[in-house]
Amino acid sequence: MKPALDRFFSVIPAGGVGSRLWPLSRADAPKFLHDLTGSGSTLLRATWDRLAPIGGDQRIMVVTGRAHRAAVESQLPGLADENIVLEADPRESTVAIALAAAILVRRDPDVIIGSFAADHVISGDRLFRSAVSEAVHAADAGYIAAIGITPTEPAVGFGYIKVAEELNITDAPSAHAVECFVEKPDLARAQEYLADGGYLWNAAMFITRADVLLEELGRTEPELRAAIVELAAAWDDPATRGPAVDRIWPTLKKIAIDYSVAEPAAAAGRLAVIPGAFKWDDVGDFASLAKLNTGGAGGDLAILGENARVLADASSGIVVSETDRVISLIGVKNIVVVDTPDALLVTTSEHAQRVKSVVDALKISGRNDLL
Amino acid sequence: MKPALDRFFSVIPAGGVGSRLWPLSRADAPKFLHDLTGSGSTLLRATWDRLAPIGGDQRIMVVTGRAHRAAVESQLPGLADENIVLEADPRESTVAIALAAAILVRRDPDVIIGSFAADHVISGDRLFRSAVSEAVHAADAGYIAAIGITPTEPAVGFGYIKVAEELNITDAPSAHAVECFVEKPDLARAQEYLADGGYLWNAAMFITRADVLLEELGRTEPELRAAIVELAAAWDDPATRGPAVDRIWPTLKKIAIDYSVAEPAAAAGRLAVIPGAFKWDDVGDFASLAKLNTGGAGGDLAILGENARVLADASSGIVVSETDRVISLIGVKNIVVVDTPDALLVTTSEHAQRVKSVVDALKISGRNDLL
Repeated sequence: MKPALDRFFSVIPAGGVGSRLWPLSRADAPKFLHDLTGSGSTLLRATWDRLAPIGGDQRIMVVTGRAHRAAVESQLPGLADENIVLEADPRESTVAIALAAAILVRRDPDVIIGSFAADHVISGDRLFRSAVSEAVHAADAGYIAAIGITPTEPAVGFGYIKVAEELNITDAPSAHAVECFVEKPDLARAQEYLADGGYLWNAAMFITRADVLLEELGRTEPELRAAIVELAAAWDDPATRGPAVDRIWPTLKKIAIDYSVAEPAAAAGRLAVIPGAFKWDDVGDFASLAKLNTGGAGGDLAILGENARVLADASSGIVVSETDRVISLIGVKNIVVVDTPDALLVTTSEHAQRVKSVVDALKISGRNDLL
Repeated sequence: MKPALDRFFSVIPAGGVGSRLWPLSRADAPKFLHDLTGSGSTLLRATWDRLAPIGGDQRIMVVTGRAHRAAVESQLPGLADENIVLEADPRESTVAIALAAAILVRRDPDVIIGSFAADHVISGDRLFRSAVSEAVHAADAGYIAAIGITPTEPAVGFGYIKVAEELNITDAPSAHAVECFVEKPDLARAQEYLADGGYLWNAAMFITRADVLLEELGRTEPELRAAIVELAAAWDDPATRGPAVDRIWPTLKKIAIDYSVAEPAAAAGRLAVIPGAFKWDDVGDFASLAKLNTGGAGGDLAILGENARVLADASSGIVVSETDRVISLIGVKNIVVVDTPDALLVTTSEHAQRVKSVVDALKISGRNDLL
């Protein structure tokens, strides 16, 4: 068998719209196709650039919606045709990741896959690669390895992983067992977790042998696993893929990988966690986007948008400009202004999570043109 | 001599841009050309409609900039050609009103003029007409008559008129002498004035015989009076008007009528004041516009704009929409959002007065396209 790192294959599920970033994120311009850090790269491209040095361009698979094929291919010219998996419609993370696993395990039975969201922001590439490397070795030892992020503040927007004993895995010295997953806490709990030191943020990064992932899925969702394996068997032959998708896709259950695999595996003692000391953010809403772009300094105003023209006086928060209009802010603190050609959002950091309710209201009123 | 009311002629100075209402008010779309109350009429048209019943369409003169001629004529189809006075460039209120007085006094030596800003909001037309009628009689008795508004709150945005003794003028039973004018006070003083009961808001409404106005102006600004009288003598002859404007206009001093006429006349005991019990607002900034359109209820959100599409959740203040964009507000209180095709303003009621500083900044940076 080849060394573990040579069997590693990255999977990038690029599915979510990012409703809490409306009206910047839209069905046809989801979060992962935006540059949210002013780096000049979309989040998807930055994810690719972070993973390509690990296994090379030929060992990255992207799972995305059919509607995003052209945008994804244009962002990732190095993406091989056989490594883009197009979803007939969105089916949540279990289908995206397990289908990739099932396709890849047919190409290489010993493949180790790592799944990394297309729309998170990470800095500290060396630390990231070091954590992935340890996770690959833990995966090679039979674990499903999560990379958990060392908390730097009492965040209430993330789930947590409670760390248990050291696992003493060769070449994965910081791998620990996982006691359990914890849902997003309130502030008091988040402060406890931070003080305790034994909790990591769940960054939804899972590294595992593909066969182990499918085996775990089979324990909790045997029908879903069977359907995915059947679909994967038809995938690589153009003659069989279409009919299989038509037949099987509509039956696939929508369930997050945390519930179908990660939490049950943790409970069964088959989950390892590697602490990641790199900076990570899932950019879940405009409050975190503001923080990310001001370095967390509350009095600063972040300005995103290539052609942004902002006149600000005694104002802080974030302006996202997708038009060429002049935007004047006077005396507004922690403000969120998102200016797009057909929709304008004005809120504050405090209410950033409620943006989703606007999206829901637009859905209900049939304003799909704005979604 | 004809009865006083038959000699009355309204003058509407329509000059100011209304910088504090930027980006709604612009050089080419000044405040008086906007409908700020959702009534369906521009402020100019509403002013006309309020004055026309007093002396008829043929007895209203409008003084405005050359650039606004077409807009004014389209708003006021009843305005006679000889009653539109076009300013070569803006010269403040003394020139606007005294030139109208000087032109009108040549047409009728006994004319009584009343000057009424084009961009104020008034409701209670019967009370308004009754105050004007008393003021006309006071003017006929030789006074310069101001209409002062009975304060309903300790406003800091207006100047005040301190009322003195009753004048006992026939058909002007509520006319009083004026002790003095008071500049915009701070809140403590405004509260004193309100409690005192002897102060009225200065609404910049002056009713006077035209010859009396010019005589008063001659006491304080003899050169300006002479220049205006000379210009007026050339005005009604197309052959002489142009050359006179070219020669005289650039020399005309910019000074507010309050300083050149009203305050000196008050000091000389030649000013009368008629208390007006009608509702009046000069709509000086977006805070007062918000108040005007919510009836002063702080928790309400005023929405202005024919095609405004606003989704608001737990928000108050004012949205002015001049585009067809959807505007979403979440959890923003006393907010001011003004959405126009080329400029967006976001501030709060508290900072509404500072909008002028944005306009100043745009001027300095040469962005005249936005002014």
